Amino acid sequence: MSNLPPLKLSQRWHYASEQAISFLMQQAVENTDVVSLAAGLVDFASLPVKETREAALLLLSDDASARKALQYGTTAGSEHLRGLLLKHLARLEGTDVSGLGIDRNRLILTTGSQQLLSLVCEVLLDPGDICLVAGPTYFVFLGNLHGVGARTVTVHTDDDGMCPQSLDAQLAQLEQDGQLERVKLIYLVSYYDNPSGRCLSAERRGPIVEIARKWSKHQRILILEDAAYRELHYNGPTIPSVLSHDTTGDTVIYTQTFSKSYSPGLRIGFGVVPQELVVPLCDRKGNEDFGSANFNQHLLSRVLESGLYESHVEEVCLAYRRKRDAMLEAADREFSDMEGVSWVHPHGGLYVWMSLPKRLETGFRSELFQAATKQHGVMYVPGELCYAGPLSERPRHQMRLSFGVQSPEGIADGMRRLASAVRAQL
Amino acid sequence: MSNLPPLKLSQRWHYASEQAISFLMQQAVENTDVVSLAAGLVDFASLPVKETREAALLLLSDDASARKALQYGTTAGSEHLRGLLLKHLARLEGTDVSGLGIDRNRLILTTGSQQLLSLVCEVLLDPGDICLVAGPTYFVFLGNLHGVGARTVTVHTDDDGMCPQSLDAQLAQLEQDGQLERVKLIYLVSYYDNPSGRCLSAERRGPIVEIARKWSKHQRILILEDAAYRELHYNGPTIPSVLSHDTTGDTVIYTQTFSKSYSPGLRIGFGVVPQELVVPLCDRKGNEDFGSANFNQHLLSRVLESGLYESHVEEVCLAYRRKRDAMLEAADREFSDMEGVSWVHPHGGLYVWMSLPKRLETGFRSELFQAATKQHGVMYVPGELCYAGPLSERPRHQMRLSFGVQSPEGIADGMRRLASAVRAQL
Repeated sequence: MSNLPPLKLSQRWHYASEQAISFLMQQAVENTDVVSLAAGLVDFASLPVKETREAALLLLSDDASARKALQYGTTAGSEHLRGLLLKHLARLEGTDVSGLGIDRNRLILTTGSQQLLSLVCEVLLDPGDICLVAGPTYFVFLGNLHGVGARTVTVHTDDDGMCPQSLDAQLAQLEQDGQLERVKLIYLVSYYDNPSGRCLSAERRGPIVEIARKWSKHQRILILEDAAYRELHYNGPTIPSVLSHDTTGDTVIYTQTFSKSYSPGLRIGFGVVPQELVVPLCDRKGNEDFGSANFNQHLLSRVLESGLYESHVEEVCLAYRRKRDAMLEAADREFSDMEGVSWVHPHGGLYVWMSLPKRLETGFRSELFQAATKQHGVMYVPGELCYAGPLSERPRHQMRLSFGVQSPEGIADGMRRLASAVRAQL
Repeated sequence: MSNLPPLKLSQRWHYASEQAISFLMQQAVENTDVVSLAAGLVDFASLPVKETREAALLLLSDDASARKALQYGTTAGSEHLRGLLLKHLARLEGTDVSGLGIDRNRLILTTGSQQLLSLVCEVLLDPGDICLVAGPTYFVFLGNLHGVGARTVTVHTDDDGMCPQSLDAQLAQLEQDGQLERVKLIYLVSYYDNPSGRCLSAERRGPIVEIARKWSKHQRILILEDAAYRELHYNGPTIPSVLSHDTTGDTVIYTQTFSKSYSPGLRIGFGVVPQELVVPLCDRKGNEDFGSANFNQHLLSRVLESGLYESHVEEVCLAYRRKRDAMLEAADREFSDMEGVSWVHPHGGLYVWMSLPKRLETGFRSELFQAATKQHGVMYVPGELCYAGPLSERPRHQMRLSFGVQSPEGIADGMRRLASAVRAQL
């Protein structure tokens, strides 16, 4: 190395540095021999090999269609796939495309739904702007908010998801504090939340849209509905989205992904956004990457058109249901005799959210985390990462347990290890 | 629509709005019946259908390898592909991997090289920071710079690319003006520049690295070497990169893409970055998308390993050379009798850069552009888009002519139409 002066990185980078996700991944790298109940990856065995092979052959056996897929696409993504996604969304909402009433132009295809979350922050939020979030909430999105210098306000959340009364009260308080004009966003993981596994109840969905509108006094307050886990449901059909309550199409940004229900390796997510946001988001996305991989969009179109997708999702849900059941059974078996330990019973998604007695901290530097990873050979995501605000004010006695990656036997083993680690601390 | 107040977008969005690329794409949409010498797409006929089919079959016929490709990858991208890219880069530099002396960890895979360009701006530049650019230069990157609020300073550029003396003089002037501490970046399209088709001469490459080091007084001044067109060379082998002159590995960020040489639909680019930038760039990329499509990276690995890539690039270069020749022949035929009209003879890339007499403006609102698109049925990229600084101070009499998309016959036809339009204005 020469003796050049140091790099001087941007303010933006300083906002974004020290993300929990980096530390978590470092922990995973340093502890490869543990049973991970932390990783947010999907089930390896049910990844759609034969479905993708069939779709790839369909796509690549015709020269003209293959070339279209190998050429540049548009920034907003394949029109054909966006049309198919409207049908797909209509089916999930229990209606048809005309009943859905959403124009194809309001759909934007992104590199996973993560990119949509990131783009919304970039286009909407200035440093000091406010986003209301559930407590707990998806910790990677907290990183996006910090990355643009936004502030977060936590809304009380129970087993039915974010509480409308608490949301309303927080907004009233913000108005009283002269901060309402900085509020721009309400973030919700509306189905089988990451990390809590909770589903926002059907009864709360309409009122939350109404509250966002009611407090849109200075500028529009948008709801960002993250429906990443919507299709992973194990007890009956899913309820209509928060988006479906936005009858004027100007309040809800909806995002969903094929990473959980099909393949994260294709990195295809999408957003349905208010018409006025289409151009700003596409301008920003154009600057970032000119559009996500066109080839993958054409491939997914074949998967959806051929009917391969629906049967695959059924398989995936069966596999995850078995794993969810394995984790809940193991929790009953291993933890039900421990006083002050409780957990959410999720009806979908990939996570069980467990609370320990309040005195028992679960963070990276806690005795429990150290003992769990170093002695008992098991890892989880510390619950404190999933809250906004200063660490000292967050609940610090919870854990996110993922049943996505491990086999049912691995889950049982991991839960046994975790129970030993917790018992030793009690 | 309800009567909600308007959206309030971020300062960031205001910086980035009104990009030339949006207007250009709108022009393309409004003028679909013209012969486009504007589009930056690649040759449709030579897109690698059979190569991709073969690679997809290789990848998807083995369950274990297929599942790895369909699972999440890492933010920095497939280690295996990054290893192959080191070999690939070594071959281009005329050395081997040990001669290259670059650690695999310094490679980051991105969604096209465009994402690398965008990430560098995000991580490095604050509003008011300065990037030195060639004149003309790649106009989309000017949009990235404006998007983070950076300032641009133009360095004199001739047929051998950016002039080291002018670069040195500009930096001296910036120091005198008390602005040197805001200088963070020098941007170069080092092979067959977009838009000028010029190649930075071998003799200038080392000196430019030395100048960046010399003026790194307050903080590091980095060179961003955009080698997007490196493999599209039609007259002999390519020369070593600017990166190859960065013997301490702390001054040059190098980026390349497979969009031009293989397929833009896969959206695979990569960067080789100074070690200290790896974590900041990956943190940022993690926030944006968790990593580009893993499936595509595994697919490209198969393409590279099987030898399908090298033979494809030879084919592509042959096809483009024919098109380049068709455009240069047509230019000779149609324009050589027009006084004050000249053009660069590129040895690679996709563009011919043409200058008209200075009085003849070429911008979107010029008589020439209007007549060309509306009456003569031909479109080009106005040269003024490819300069930084206030419009009134830019050269406004040039055109970027692309030979990428049209057939040799289409090119001849387009050039004939363009010559008629120009002649009518003279």
